[in-house]
Amino acid sequence: MTDAIRRHDTTARGFASDNWSGIHPEVLAALAVANGGHQSSYGSDEYTVALQQIFARHFGDGVAGYPVCTGTGANVVALQALLPRWGAVITAESAHVNSDECGAAEKVAGIKIYPVDAPDGKLTPELVDRQTWGRGHEHRAQPLAVSITQTTELGTCYSIDEIRALCEHAHDRDMLVHVDGARLCNAAATLDAPLRAFTTDVGVDIVSFGGTKNGLMLGEAVVVLAPQRIHDIEYLRMLTTQLSSKMRYLSVQFEALLGGDLWLRNAVHANAMATRLAEAAGAVEGVRIARPVQSNAVFAVLPAEVTARLRRRFPFHVWDEDTGEVRWMCAFDTTAEDVDAFAAAVAEEMSVRA
Amino acid sequence: MTDAIRRHDTTARGFASDNWSGIHPEVLAALAVANGGHQSSYGSDEYTVALQQIFARHFGDGVAGYPVCTGTGANVVALQALLPRWGAVITAESAHVNSDECGAAEKVAGIKIYPVDAPDGKLTPELVDRQTWGRGHEHRAQPLAVSITQTTELGTCYSIDEIRALCEHAHDRDMLVHVDGARLCNAAATLDAPLRAFTTDVGVDIVSFGGTKNGLMLGEAVVVLAPQRIHDIEYLRMLTTQLSSKMRYLSVQFEALLGGDLWLRNAVHANAMATRLAEAAGAVEGVRIARPVQSNAVFAVLPAEVTARLRRRFPFHVWDEDTGEVRWMCAFDTTAEDVDAFAAAVAEEMSVRA
Amino acid sequence: MTDAIRRHDTTARGFASDNWSGIHPEVLAALAVANGGHQSSYGSDEYTVALQQIFARHFGDGVAGYPVCTGTGANVVALQALLPRWGAVITAESAHVNSDECGAAEKVAGIKIYPVDAPDGKLTPELVDRQTWGRGHEHRAQPLAVSITQTTELGTCYSIDEIRALCEHAHDRDMLVHVDGARLCNAAATLDAPLRAFTTDVGVDIVSFGGTKNGLMLGEAVVVLAPQRIHDIEYLRMLTTQLSSKMRYLSVQFEALLGGDLWLRNAVHANAMATRLAEAAGAVEGVRIARPVQSNAVFAVLPAEVTARLRRRFPFHVWDEDTGEVRWMCAFDTTAEDVDAFAAAVAEEMSVRA
Amino acid sequence: MTDAIRRHDTTARGFASDNWSGIHPEVLAALAVANGGHQSSYGSDEYTVALQQIFARHFGDGVAGYPVCTGTGANVVALQALLPRWGAVITAESAHVNSDECGAAEKVAGIKIYPVDAPDGKLTPELVDRQTWGRGHEHRAQPLAVSITQTTELGTCYSIDEIRALCEHAHDRDMLVHVDGARLCNAAATLDAPLRAFTTDVGVDIVSFGGTKNGLMLGEAVVVLAPQRIHDIEYLRMLTTQLSSKMRYLSVQFEALLGGDLWLRNAVHANAMATRLAEAAGAVEGVRIARPVQSNAVFAVLPAEVTARLRRRFPFHVWDEDTGEVRWMCAFDTTAEDVDAFAAAVAEEMSVRA
Repeated sequence: MTDAIRRHDTTARGFASDNWSGIHPEVLAALAVANGGHQSSYGSDEYTVALQQIFARHFGDGVAGYPVCTGTGANVVALQALLPRWGAVITAESAHVNSDECGAAEKVAGIKIYPVDAPDGKLTPELVDRQTWGRGHEHRAQPLAVSITQTTELGTCYSIDEIRALCEHAHDRDMLVHVDGARLCNAAATLDAPLRAFTTDVGVDIVSFGGTKNGLMLGEAVVVLAPQRIHDIEYLRMLTTQLSSKMRYLSVQFEALLGGDLWLRNAVHANAMATRLAEAAGAVEGVRIARPVQSNAVFAVLPAEVTARLRRRFPFHVWDEDTGEVRWMCAFDTTAEDVDAFAAAVAEEMSVRA
Repeated sequence: MTDAIRRHDTTARGFASDNWSGIHPEVLAALAVANGGHQSSYGSDEYTVALQQIFARHFGDGVAGYPVCTGTGANVVALQALLPRWGAVITAESAHVNSDECGAAEKVAGIKIYPVDAPDGKLTPELVDRQTWGRGHEHRAQPLAVSITQTTELGTCYSIDEIRALCEHAHDRDMLVHVDGARLCNAAATLDAPLRAFTTDVGVDIVSFGGTKNGLMLGEAVVVLAPQRIHDIEYLRMLTTQLSSKMRYLSVQFEALLGGDLWLRNAVHANAMATRLAEAAGAVEGVRIARPVQSNAVFAVLPAEVTARLRRRFPFHVWDEDTGEVRWMCAFDTTAEDVDAFAAAVAEEMSVRA
Repeated sequence: MTDAIRRHDTTARGFASDNWSGIHPEVLAALAVANGGHQSSYGSDEYTVALQQIFARHFGDGVAGYPVCTGTGANVVALQALLPRWGAVITAESAHVNSDECGAAEKVAGIKIYPVDAPDGKLTPELVDRQTWGRGHEHRAQPLAVSITQTTELGTCYSIDEIRALCEHAHDRDMLVHVDGARLCNAAATLDAPLRAFTTDVGVDIVSFGGTKNGLMLGEAVVVLAPQRIHDIEYLRMLTTQLSSKMRYLSVQFEALLGGDLWLRNAVHANAMATRLAEAAGAVEGVRIARPVQSNAVFAVLPAEVTARLRRRFPFHVWDEDTGEVRWMCAFDTTAEDVDAFAAAVAEEMSVRA
Repeated sequence: MTDAIRRHDTTARGFASDNWSGIHPEVLAALAVANGGHQSSYGSDEYTVALQQIFARHFGDGVAGYPVCTGTGANVVALQALLPRWGAVITAESAHVNSDECGAAEKVAGIKIYPVDAPDGKLTPELVDRQTWGRGHEHRAQPLAVSITQTTELGTCYSIDEIRALCEHAHDRDMLVHVDGARLCNAAATLDAPLRAFTTDVGVDIVSFGGTKNGLMLGEAVVVLAPQRIHDIEYLRMLTTQLSSKMRYLSVQFEALLGGDLWLRNAVHANAMATRLAEAAGAVEGVRIARPVQSNAVFAVLPAEVTARLRRRFPFHVWDEDTGEVRWMCAFDTTAEDVDAFAAAVAEEMSVRA
């Protein structure tokens, strides 16, 4: 039925990244639901239209969601919507938009980033204020936005109050707030709160809502939470090269995810697997869990030679060669058996060492 | 099995655009083939690796293909690869990259476009030379690339000799050649020639290879045909926001398309439907087929009130309000019955008029 | 008193460009007037402050003038002030910002230019309308500004009514109007009208006001005529690299030019020299004056070999190698003797030919 | 002789910035030397041609100097010459190009900056290495250049060995080295070494050579020290809006500065005035000189109310409101009397406090 050939072991899973996972079966099924016949392109199809109600259910009335193809695309579109040509955004040094997007914000949109060293990946009002100086001074790209990541690249999760405080602080200084929500669902699972509780309801202006890491094949969305202040995403999406023609297939994936509770089931599961792994591996003598486990990521410190042997058995990333810190990511499809097998391998390789 | 709901009539098809079509069943099946288990992200998966051999089969040994998400993304990546910061590209006025991409080339990458009026959508060496002046002169963004569209936005198709002549002309002037191949497969069908015959073999340096309009859900590829001259697409793809994390799903779609002959079956069929439509509608008194039918597009001139009534029955686009020219696009999924029904409608509405 | 050595013949003048001329003695004297002591940098000095009243006298109350270093800088700053990120500007094909600035508008600011072929260098409402289509359509960079050049690169001058009509037309379509006024003073001389009569008073929104070609050493200004609509030039000037630190020396040059009537004296003279030259050279058999002489430029058609011999005696530019058209520019410092000598040379070289 | 009016006290000088100073009389005289007659524009004039030999005398045979208008312009041109589209530059957090140029590098040229906290304004190989990771990894804008400032924004001066070590370190990692030399002459005075000794001879690839702060009216230069590696400055200067048409007037200023020893006289004097001021003010009880005085800048810590009273008498800038640190800049025109009067005022205001 297709000339494509299966080329991989569909039972092999590791801990490298949640984007090594596949398409959740319910999402794959949704693609077939939307298939057949013709649908208007570029977002006037029935699925994209209907998606607005679904986003409204999660984020509040009046929000507008714009599907895009990549997380970097979502971030660059969102930041352009917040900033004039002379604007700058304050982020944590470790923020994806600062450290992992090949300078796309600068290169595509001329956005200046003021990175702040945030050891746990989380900005605070105090950290933000390290870069808020120079307002009204033409020599300084104007810090007019704050971008936080929820959950962070370091696996930590802002509390609702922390985000509220950041939004109030930013708004008091005429800055808008962007959330890079590549793992926003994981945060909802951690916080046991609806998505709007720590975004719209506490003052966030715009979100890059992540789908790919939580079971989609491909799909992120720019969700405008403050439509009275933020406009013209259509143009920004197009000029940023992020407008997908057969948009129904992005939108229907989001419907599969957000129409019911798949978004939460996936996230709760991935988080639970991370907790299980941290407990099991953390119990191994000589292994130190390096950071709070507040999402689907586990950071641990291992001896380098153990890491090397382990990586021959299971894929995962070394986070910091100098300190020996490694990152283990769980995904919607990580099983308890995967975790237990991996934890056993950790114990085994540690004991070989001893 | 999914919370997504079917919201459209899967039997309704029109003539608005080939990107109103859906996913070809063989492509949809391929997504399932690649699903399950974990695969390395960002292009080191088995499918993307294997895809290189498939591209080589079609375009020649040594070519390199880089899947991206959108056609605009492919064009902007490709043009950046051809041009220094002070470079410019010569295109037809009607080229998609000039007229339909919200200025993405300029806005993302600072590329200057020198558009040339080309009534049939096709550049010639003479037309190119209208903009080749000023080489070595710092006041002029340097025209160092030519971009042609195959098949063109006006439904015309360059002959192999025409492309060869353009490439020789460009190379003689130290310019590189890009082909926007959103409908490259349709050209192969028209020319009855393999893809490399009118690209690699005649000197084209880089191609935006289109998948979406020919049956993919979403997927284009930047294919470097002159790897000795063109480098670093990986960085350009990333900074242009076009790097998809779960790339296996882009690549396996291309495998479904290009691994066998689906690419050609789809294109041959779409072209044939256009020919059938042009013949049937063109036979209706008062309808004038406005341009040569050399791909899956038919351009016709109708009375405005007929157009208005017809569009209430079948979606299609008005191309030029002043002249009454309309565009009818066929796709891989257009059936002979669709065409015949539409041609009958044309005849009917024309007769109502008379 | 200085280690700099005179290296050129101060009595030699040609017809290559008005920017081959030097500093008018009154402008040079002004530099000394502003010299000595300390003055606040970046525009809060006394000279820049006072300059605002001088600009107001010429352009109307409430205007704001921002000195910059180059004409390209002025244009890029001004167009950024008029356009959102997704904006485009309609210009004549021959406009300096389109043809002679190495793509600075695109490369610095991502501005899309829609060039329109205008044989005499002048846009009309009809020509503008060739590019106003596609408003509200995200696939098209939005045409939200019109830029005209006064006087044009082809030596022609818009009438007051022509500019008024263009402004009304543009404003009716929610577009703003920029005037590249590198030779705005020459236009005032031609029109025998104050500067505001064909700018502020007829609806122009922003001007690149030229000083360099009219006797300054170096200095242009972005003059905002519609401050209620156009903001934040300070930031745009800085980020465009155009903020001069010792700004008093730009501003005092403008004071020398605009504080009295030097601006008009210089322009009237340069224009008169062009007229004298056109009459004298145009009377030579075989020489054809190719365009209306409405500023300080003369365009003529000569046999190529005559042009070649003449250029060995006097510098000037060939405008079009194919047609044999040449350009002769007069400047504030062109003398009647220069013109007569040159016209005699034209006659002589033409007769040698015969 | 001019309509410009003297509007300021030519005897008043403060300590706000070296760019509050005027034009050195020898430089002003040079403008007259170059005036009169016509000279080819855009850099083919006699003065710009001759300037190349003068730059060669200071920086070595084969270097090429490109006059530009502003220091920001010089930096943005130079960094573009060093970096591909995906490139990034490592700088000190306090570097002008990072902190004081409104994001011009990002906004004009899409350059990513990796700032490193350097308490004394000086990078070291160790500090550079904080940002050299991720080479070959497409997710990271590639760190391919290092930019240092000599002398630094904090008044410190790299030793020759320190620059050599940085260049070796950078080149070992395939990075090129830019020096922002807005105050390069002050460094030569401090180091008692020719300009090439701490640039060309130790491996620096390109310099933004500052003239304005050292006695010019307006003028900086991009000086390419490694012409075998760095090309096409002409285009980059033009597209960055930095090409001055009457370039003879930039070049002759540099000739006045560099043709003899004015560059050194001015810098030695300004530095000496800073030393004199640091000694005199540092001797006042309660005043702390906060940083080494290695150029024409003095940083001191004063009680806030003393600072406030002092600033009503002499202009200078508060560097850090929190710590009470202020900056006092000396210039080529600062006199010993100025210094002594200011030091006396410091003493007086401090005693009022006590």
